[in-house]
Amino acid sequence: MLEESLKQERHKVVVVGGGFGGLYAAKNLGRENGVDVTLIDKRNFHLFQPLLYQVATGTLSPADISSPLRSVLNKSKNTKVLLGEVTDIDPEEQQVLMGDEKIPYDTLIVATGAKHSYFGKDHWENSAPGLKTVEDAIEMRRRIFTAFEAAEKETDPEKRRAWLTFVIVGGGPTGVELAGAIAELAYHTMKNDFRNFDTSEAQVLLLEGLDRILPPFAPELSAEAETSLKGLGVTVQTKTLVTNIEDDIITLKQGNANKDDQFEQITAKTVLWAAGVKASAMGKVLADKTGVECDRAGRVIVEPNLSIKGYPNIFAIGDLGHFAHQSDRPLPGVAPVAMQQGKYVASLIKRRLKNQTLLSFYYVDRGSLAVIGQNAAVVDLLFIKLKGFFAWLFWLLIHIHFLIEFDNKLVVMIQWVWNYFTRNRGARLITGKELEPIGGDGDDSNNGDYYQAPKKRQTANA
Amino acid sequence: MLEESLKQERHKVVVVGGGFGGLYAAKNLGRENGVDVTLIDKRNFHLFQPLLYQVATGTLSPADISSPLRSVLNKSKNTKVLLGEVTDIDPEEQQVLMGDEKIPYDTLIVATGAKHSYFGKDHWENSAPGLKTVEDAIEMRRRIFTAFEAAEKETDPEKRRAWLTFVIVGGGPTGVELAGAIAELAYHTMKNDFRNFDTSEAQVLLLEGLDRILPPFAPELSAEAETSLKGLGVTVQTKTLVTNIEDDIITLKQGNANKDDQFEQITAKTVLWAAGVKASAMGKVLADKTGVECDRAGRVIVEPNLSIKGYPNIFAIGDLGHFAHQSDRPLPGVAPVAMQQGKYVASLIKRRLKNQTLLSFYYVDRGSLAVIGQNAAVVDLLFIKLKGFFAWLFWLLIHIHFLIEFDNKLVVMIQWVWNYFTRNRGARLITGKELEPIGGDGDDSNNGDYYQAPKKRQTANA
Repeated sequence: MLEESLKQERHKVVVVGGGFGGLYAAKNLGRENGVDVTLIDKRNFHLFQPLLYQVATGTLSPADISSPLRSVLNKSKNTKVLLGEVTDIDPEEQQVLMGDEKIPYDTLIVATGAKHSYFGKDHWENSAPGLKTVEDAIEMRRRIFTAFEAAEKETDPEKRRAWLTFVIVGGGPTGVELAGAIAELAYHTMKNDFRNFDTSEAQVLLLEGLDRILPPFAPELSAEAETSLKGLGVTVQTKTLVTNIEDDIITLKQGNANKDDQFEQITAKTVLWAAGVKASAMGKVLADKTGVECDRAGRVIVEPNLSIKGYPNIFAIGDLGHFAHQSDRPLPGVAPVAMQQGKYVASLIKRRLKNQTLLSFYYVDRGSLAVIGQNAAVVDLLFIKLKGFFAWLFWLLIHIHFLIEFDNKLVVMIQWVWNYFTRNRGARLITGKELEPIGGDGDDSNNGDYYQAPKKRQTANA
Repeated sequence: MLEESLKQERHKVVVVGGGFGGLYAAKNLGRENGVDVTLIDKRNFHLFQPLLYQVATGTLSPADISSPLRSVLNKSKNTKVLLGEVTDIDPEEQQVLMGDEKIPYDTLIVATGAKHSYFGKDHWENSAPGLKTVEDAIEMRRRIFTAFEAAEKETDPEKRRAWLTFVIVGGGPTGVELAGAIAELAYHTMKNDFRNFDTSEAQVLLLEGLDRILPPFAPELSAEAETSLKGLGVTVQTKTLVTNIEDDIITLKQGNANKDDQFEQITAKTVLWAAGVKASAMGKVLADKTGVECDRAGRVIVEPNLSIKGYPNIFAIGDLGHFAHQSDRPLPGVAPVAMQQGKYVASLIKRRLKNQTLLSFYYVDRGSLAVIGQNAAVVDLLFIKLKGFFAWLFWLLIHIHFLIEFDNKLVVMIQWVWNYFTRNRGARLITGKELEPIGGDGDDSNNGDYYQAPKKRQTANA
């Protein structure tokens, strides 16, 4: 009882979401006296999302880029991890709701991130899955490798071409990394694996709506990335918008073409979506319950100290937040922003408890990087721009640095070194229990012995 | 056309199943002139089943113990890999059927293995999943780690005890290895991870029907294994039969108890099945189409040269076959038997093509091994028996030897060394998209924010 009453005087921080933002906030409050932290996540692990494309393309396993939240936080005795989904918040009573259960807070940090967005065309998702979760990556992996298996079997050249056409929509870092990895798979890793076709028949197409890929980078690095991708065999099409995806037909609109001549159709069995994101559902919950404004992507517009207008003890950080106090554009949805914001909010809470103040949040942009393939990357460090092998090495070191921060993922490093010398990709498993026969099209002559991406998305795990 | 007619004269070997038996047969025919090999498997990878329990308990990832069949066989230019399911065979026309597609053979090797058996109580499967596939392992992993998450949340001591009770049915190598690994997880790896209970409250119960665990081993090693397991905190109950599993109530019959007093009930949310196997469905297909006899477990009774009576060009090898020409008991369903049989049939085919003969198959038993935990194993090499640390080291080396044979899985070795020094288990992910709220029982006060093993088994992948 005494313990209970003492506890009541401790400052209760609830963190919703164990991504980069939430985890950095929790870690930085982990040894703070007088604070109790509860981290709530739907999953029992933190996911290193920047490397998810390596799971989707068969290089790494999901566990290589995931760290159990409990083990990351097990040294923080003031921190409790709860597995569950927050369904609502009650800012007046200061509590979050998980179904019927109520968890009280003094300070609330919402860091539930973003999911992919189809700009209102949600029905495209079945044809063109995105890449945000481990399940998404396993599903992409299944589709990519199933396409090659189906091509091995297909005797009709046109249908085989459809199986061997890979379209990636969106020329940001994820799209570039996926395209490069699929080209390496097709033209190098698997070149001796099939008997009925030559993997060089495969086509990898990267589509970008703007006039260059990697728009956040300096133009010369975009150009360099395009050259590297072409060297790997990727066809890069900029100024190209997808206007429809139906079954395996993608309709494109070329920004530069004449009005009469601007639509093109591509037949591809594998379409991967890397084009847009929107805030997770907690954005709307916050808007409903606090009246805070959201932007078009559903992100919560935050104050200079990352709190929500009128609610100084509720913060929205990472991909969920729209922070527009630093430049004319909101901060990008990347890991470094989330990490710095998580750390900032932790500091702010600690200072408030001592009745001190803290300046507004300021994002220190240390640059951007994207990897194109083995040996090639582009790195924009603002003061210096790298490309090619050294950029790739830099990319590798940075990612290893952040990966091992929580969990000492030594093994990933060794896996990469190993893959580098062997071009091996051991993780190219097609898994999924409720497999469906390939070829749902009525006219398809396939006969049930291959498996294809089902029309409705399946449960797919890791 | 000429090429086609030349091809017709080549001897067509069809291998069904890419486990140890099928893969060894294909590998040993891979460079043979005059032979064309087609390996058919439902999955695109070979699975190293003896280590599946390490996936189920969060040490290794599925890809660590899987090798893509195409890359294992890509140097064998005479070998084609087909992804698909054989639905029937036609011994008169000498072809196997995959749906409507017919694949002709001159020699057929059936190596489709076994699945777990509930001795006629198939409805137990939902309550007590077995461990044969990657999906099975992911499902076990999900149940084990979800149980700890649920215990963290549960306030009713009795219900918490049910979440923290792990029952493993079957004291063979798989059951022993699972029990040891779960005990290490609970009492070592995760001991600092929870705030609302002490992981030492967990109970790990290993049930065996016979009078000792590891019945194929020498009695002193069985005793040693039992001592080691008890040292790890496992409760070993021999002479104990499971008579019913319903929801989370397991009814046991003690072989030694009085008649009036012989039933016991245990409440456990996690029950894992490691008790029995039966042959895969191809056993029945072979019986129907060739008239061959099967044993009670559905295994095909084979001739001394592993062929099927009346069909000298059809072979059943590995776990699918019942070979009773060597001792009074059929050969056990273990990897070394399958490997030796695959190699034997490949040799027999090669000799037949040269009009030579080969002596009957003879299994060279090099011993048995089972691992109990970090630092402890039992190894029965017939001429020498090892236990403890040296047995564990021997177990490690043997498994590394076979793992790297196909795929140079260097990384697994490093992962093990790493785990050895850190007791880390990084792969303890709970994955699965269609998660259901924990607590299906009507009286359960849980409120939807945890997830439990659903009543009906889910799709679960890797």
